[in-house]
Amino acid sequence: MPRHFLSTADWSRDELESLIEEALAFKRGERRDRPLTDRSVALVFFNPSLRTRASMQLAVNQLGGYPIVLEPGSTSWTIEYAEGAVMDRDRTEHVAEFVGVLGRYCAAIGVRVFPALKDWREERADPIIGAFARRSPVPIINLESAMHHPCQALADMTTIRERLGAGKRRVSLVWVWHPKPLPMAVPNSFALAAAQLGHELTIAHPPGYELDDELVRELNMLAHDHGTRVRISNEIEDAFDGAQVIYAKSWGSRMFYGMAEEEREMRAAYRRWIVDVKLMSRTDDAIFMHCLPVRRNVEVTDDVLDSPASAVLDEAENRLHAQKAIIARVCEREAR
Amino acid sequence: MPRHFLSTADWSRDELESLIEEALAFKRGERRDRPLTDRSVALVFFNPSLRTRASMQLAVNQLGGYPIVLEPGSTSWTIEYAEGAVMDRDRTEHVAEFVGVLGRYCAAIGVRVFPALKDWREERADPIIGAFARRSPVPIINLESAMHHPCQALADMTTIRERLGAGKRRVSLVWVWHPKPLPMAVPNSFALAAAQLGHELTIAHPPGYELDDELVRELNMLAHDHGTRVRISNEIEDAFDGAQVIYAKSWGSRMFYGMAEEEREMRAAYRRWIVDVKLMSRTDDAIFMHCLPVRRNVEVTDDVLDSPASAVLDEAENRLHAQKAIIARVCEREAR
Amino acid sequence: MPRHFLSTADWSRDELESLIEEALAFKRGERRDRPLTDRSVALVFFNPSLRTRASMQLAVNQLGGYPIVLEPGSTSWTIEYAEGAVMDRDRTEHVAEFVGVLGRYCAAIGVRVFPALKDWREERADPIIGAFARRSPVPIINLESAMHHPCQALADMTTIRERLGAGKRRVSLVWVWHPKPLPMAVPNSFALAAAQLGHELTIAHPPGYELDDELVRELNMLAHDHGTRVRISNEIEDAFDGAQVIYAKSWGSRMFYGMAEEEREMRAAYRRWIVDVKLMSRTDDAIFMHCLPVRRNVEVTDDVLDSPASAVLDEAENRLHAQKAIIARVCEREAR
Repeated sequence: MPRHFLSTADWSRDELESLIEEALAFKRGERRDRPLTDRSVALVFFNPSLRTRASMQLAVNQLGGYPIVLEPGSTSWTIEYAEGAVMDRDRTEHVAEFVGVLGRYCAAIGVRVFPALKDWREERADPIIGAFARRSPVPIINLESAMHHPCQALADMTTIRERLGAGKRRVSLVWVWHPKPLPMAVPNSFALAAAQLGHELTIAHPPGYELDDELVRELNMLAHDHGTRVRISNEIEDAFDGAQVIYAKSWGSRMFYGMAEEEREMRAAYRRWIVDVKLMSRTDDAIFMHCLPVRRNVEVTDDVLDSPASAVLDEAENRLHAQKAIIARVCEREAR
Repeated sequence: MPRHFLSTADWSRDELESLIEEALAFKRGERRDRPLTDRSVALVFFNPSLRTRASMQLAVNQLGGYPIVLEPGSTSWTIEYAEGAVMDRDRTEHVAEFVGVLGRYCAAIGVRVFPALKDWREERADPIIGAFARRSPVPIINLESAMHHPCQALADMTTIRERLGAGKRRVSLVWVWHPKPLPMAVPNSFALAAAQLGHELTIAHPPGYELDDELVRELNMLAHDHGTRVRISNEIEDAFDGAQVIYAKSWGSRMFYGMAEEEREMRAAYRRWIVDVKLMSRTDDAIFMHCLPVRRNVEVTDDVLDSPASAVLDEAENRLHAQKAIIARVCEREAR
Repeated sequence: MPRHFLSTADWSRDELESLIEEALAFKRGERRDRPLTDRSVALVFFNPSLRTRASMQLAVNQLGGYPIVLEPGSTSWTIEYAEGAVMDRDRTEHVAEFVGVLGRYCAAIGVRVFPALKDWREERADPIIGAFARRSPVPIINLESAMHHPCQALADMTTIRERLGAGKRRVSLVWVWHPKPLPMAVPNSFALAAAQLGHELTIAHPPGYELDDELVRELNMLAHDHGTRVRISNEIEDAFDGAQVIYAKSWGSRMFYGMAEEEREMRAAYRRWIVDVKLMSRTDDAIFMHCLPVRRNVEVTDDVLDSPASAVLDEAENRLHAQKAIIARVCEREAR
């Protein structure tokens, strides 16, 4: 059974700390080995990607490997995930063959597969990426699933380490307004990784934008283990007072999961949730983080984004280094 | 005039046997040369592809070359194939310039171009891939045309050799039900290659699903040369009794070429044409083959597909090795 | 501030001559260095491309680098170019972050972005590619913008040098009929580069198909500096008498910018503007040039295109060599 990278939840704090150190070693040029020489990694995008696509290709290339990019498209190539299915409808290939074949060609498979945005109860357990993992003979690397984006989270944790040094920091995840409801993978994975690494986490969002209940329970348990607690607030200012890291992100309401039209009115009330210089001035000289793409002057004002406090390009660059650490680790566990 | 790889029909039995041996030498790691160093191969997909795209890129890369993947799309980039055409309609480039330019960049050109599914009489002669070949200054490798898929066929023959050893085998091509009529390139090329290599071929399909008349004549002549004969039956069981290889594939009826709606009723009557354990038990311990993607529990049941008899992942893997042998061969014939 | 390659206008005659010499050195195999080793170049296509895509990938690869091809699509990924914009509509990322992130991964960024074909007054200044250049921390290479295609122009000038030797030539840019109005990037850049290099330029087009006024003033000033003049005619024959180079190209009328329907009637009157053997016989044994794709027997007859005078495949091949010279030059100026 290969070791997958589906969520940071499956990796211990020590393992995550070690991946961060390797990411920084790659960035500083201290680590230059090419463990993927004469090997290949498949990068499968069921949904569009620019940043992930560029950084993953480059990561595989710099590790000495050959990246194969496949874009089945969200509609043209439909995968059957159910075991025992009678495939007489429109789905053309079972995930068993999909990963079985790629496993003959590649040392690992990166997969981006967004949520269907249909049934919250079903999708909150991230079943699609789970089906890839269950059937794959080689490690699956999650390049953003319905509920998790662990490569982004590891790059974010690397950026905090790089900017602020090791140790516990006061980290705030702040919901910001956006014209459309977005998936929850990034806030889920950021909050989880921050809690796993022992940071003091504050989450601020308007009422109705609660994260998954089970995830919040997990965050609280992790915080308790680290002698701290998670603070959740419905006031944006609470995220800023004394914070060292402001992580801005918009997401949709679970109450209107996949129903953008129905959510519109509730969402419209929170347009003032935007990061600006005044809010930043309440912090303890915090850095500003965002996974990108970002809506300028909607999620955050130009003056914050263009200030030295902004770490958004560092986060994007660290995607490359973090992913090199992840790929090198999961592929080393495979003796081919 | 370059040596193309359009159909196994243009290659002698000795040449095909030699390609199979080279494919197995690549697979076993006995052959590791990189004849494409500092050279490039263009892979042109007028139709979508995952398996062919992945395996061809990897084949070129492992031979030391640089693969350029081009996806003109079936609609956005329309090629004129007729000589002397006045191009004042919607076709934007003549095949002469298309291959002329790529021939300046690349040692060979792989082309996937599916049938238009309009006129059987015209398309049965595979005129589009022929136009590429006629105009190209470098070898054209057929990555599936209207009527042939020789890379698949060579991988299939390699798999039979690998699983069952050299020599004549009792090989059955079995039509299976599928919700949609599919092209005939795979069954055409499989039957042809099996006959060329001297296997004892049985073809079973429902009435109305006959292969091309001229192809069948060719199969009979080849069988006669090898002291055997081709058996064609309208009973599925005939394909299984005593067989050593079961090759399942669905295809559309020539009578309703390109007319899925009109074929529907005739097709519906043959839903029971599915490979299952009971049919497999009639064979001489046969291996099960399919080119993939396969509809589970529609073309073949899970228990056959997941059994040790199934060679479908071997076939997919052997695409890589067979294609390395093909590319190396056609490119070596070109003195650049 | 990086040195971009947006238009030949920003490069001196000496610099252009030197790039041509380097292109020919690459072509002859005299230059084989790999200055992009361990570096990457992003190739961003907002519009489709085959020739540019193939030749740029190969150029980066042959220079030792790793090309990352990104295809945001003209609709799915919409970039905001305006400084200070409030991004609450449909544009998902600002050009500042787009190039900021790629600048962390890559030594240079190639961009193809066609005109919106909405407002001639605005687009004639090529504002989109300008926004990329203004914000990018690494060199931007123009792979065809609204108004310029300098890589094509440099390949064309290299082809003239190769076919006819150094020195002033009698070069004609000839409008030809095409069923659709096309952008003006290629004629703009060809005329500009020809004038910069001191060639004697004739431009023939029907009335209503005038090039940009400011560009024509620039052409006249350049010609004056080189002791010659630009001749502009509304008679196709004037382009051929005594010419050494015939460069055929179709383009749309500025009067009906982006209005194909409204232009139709005016355009229909000039269907006789096609290059044929009779016109070519008026020249001084001229070579025939076209950037491709070309409409056979619409823009030029088969017998001209298939004659030894045709240099169209040389131009396409020289794209590769010219681009290697350009990439090597702009990347060498960057000390990373």
